Amino acid sequence: MIKSLQDFLYSHIPLTKEMRLELVSFNESTLTAKAPLLPNINDKGSAFGGSSSALMIISAWSLIKLCCDTHQINADIVIHENHTQWQKPLYDDLFLEANFTEKYNFKAVKHRIEKNKHFRVQCEIKLVDVDANIYSTMTAYYVIIPKKEESL
Amino acid sequence: MIKSLQDFLYSHIPLTKEMRLELVSFNESTLTAKAPLLPNINDKGSAFGGSSSALMIISAWSLIKLCCDTHQINADIVIHENHTQWQKPLYDDLFLEANFTEKYNFKAVKHRIEKNKHFRVQCEIKLVDVDANIYSTMTAYYVIIPKKEESL
Repeated sequence: MIKSLQDFLYSHIPLTKEMRLELVSFNESTLTAKAPLLPNINDKGSAFGGSSSALMIISAWSLIKLCCDTHQINADIVIHENHTQWQKPLYDDLFLEANFTEKYNFKAVKHRIEKNKHFRVQCEIKLVDVDANIYSTMTAYYVIIPKKEESL
Repeated sequence: MIKSLQDFLYSHIPLTKEMRLELVSFNESTLTAKAPLLPNINDKGSAFGGSSSALMIISAWSLIKLCCDTHQINADIVIHENHTQWQKPLYDDLFLEANFTEKYNFKAVKHRIEKNKHFRVQCEIKLVDVDANIYSTMTAYYVIIPKKEESL
């Protein structure tokens, strides 16, 4: 399931491939992912803030997408708002951990989407190193929207 | 000056090259930049939120960097915090406009950096289309930090 989403990301969101994002694990409350430093490095030899931001954004998006897929929810997921703090520079590979800030009932979400209504979810994403030390934290809001039509 | 910074970005922050970021104009209060949709596209055919976030982050960073260069300020610039709102999807090339939220006196900044103190600046960045319609807005805080040592 993770592998198939990663293939989808690589073919539909080319930047995820350039960043060498790798989805690692998923359960209904958490998704973890990682990316090597080199394609995401900055002029100071640490992780580029733009890369870490993009990786955090797509990690939470992937968490929501896999929850929707699990419950056969046919919806688009779009980011609406986020807030990020960078505590210190990360001079090593990037690890991401995306969580929901509360437990969402995806059966209820499915019901709502089938009634052509959207649903807003809140996630918290951490940028950590291999030892789980925290370098950056993001709070992000996404909207799950009924698909208007199938893509061609 | 812009061309030389763009070369610097391409060689030191590889993601800027993958996103095909192009710095367009600079004066001491505003920097504009652009990037084509294709390398920054998402699964819905619109601009990937991670790309737009990264492009907004590097646009304001470039504004500050060029102001520092203009005033011979030898400093690192790091992002500390940001807040972004995405109003609507952009199905076309991305244009960025980065501004300071107030007028900073970079002569005073230089004095401060030379005394080995850091300086925090606030920027507002807009993601717009070719006709200047707004799709996303970011408020971001950066810290200008005295360089500890020259890079090798």
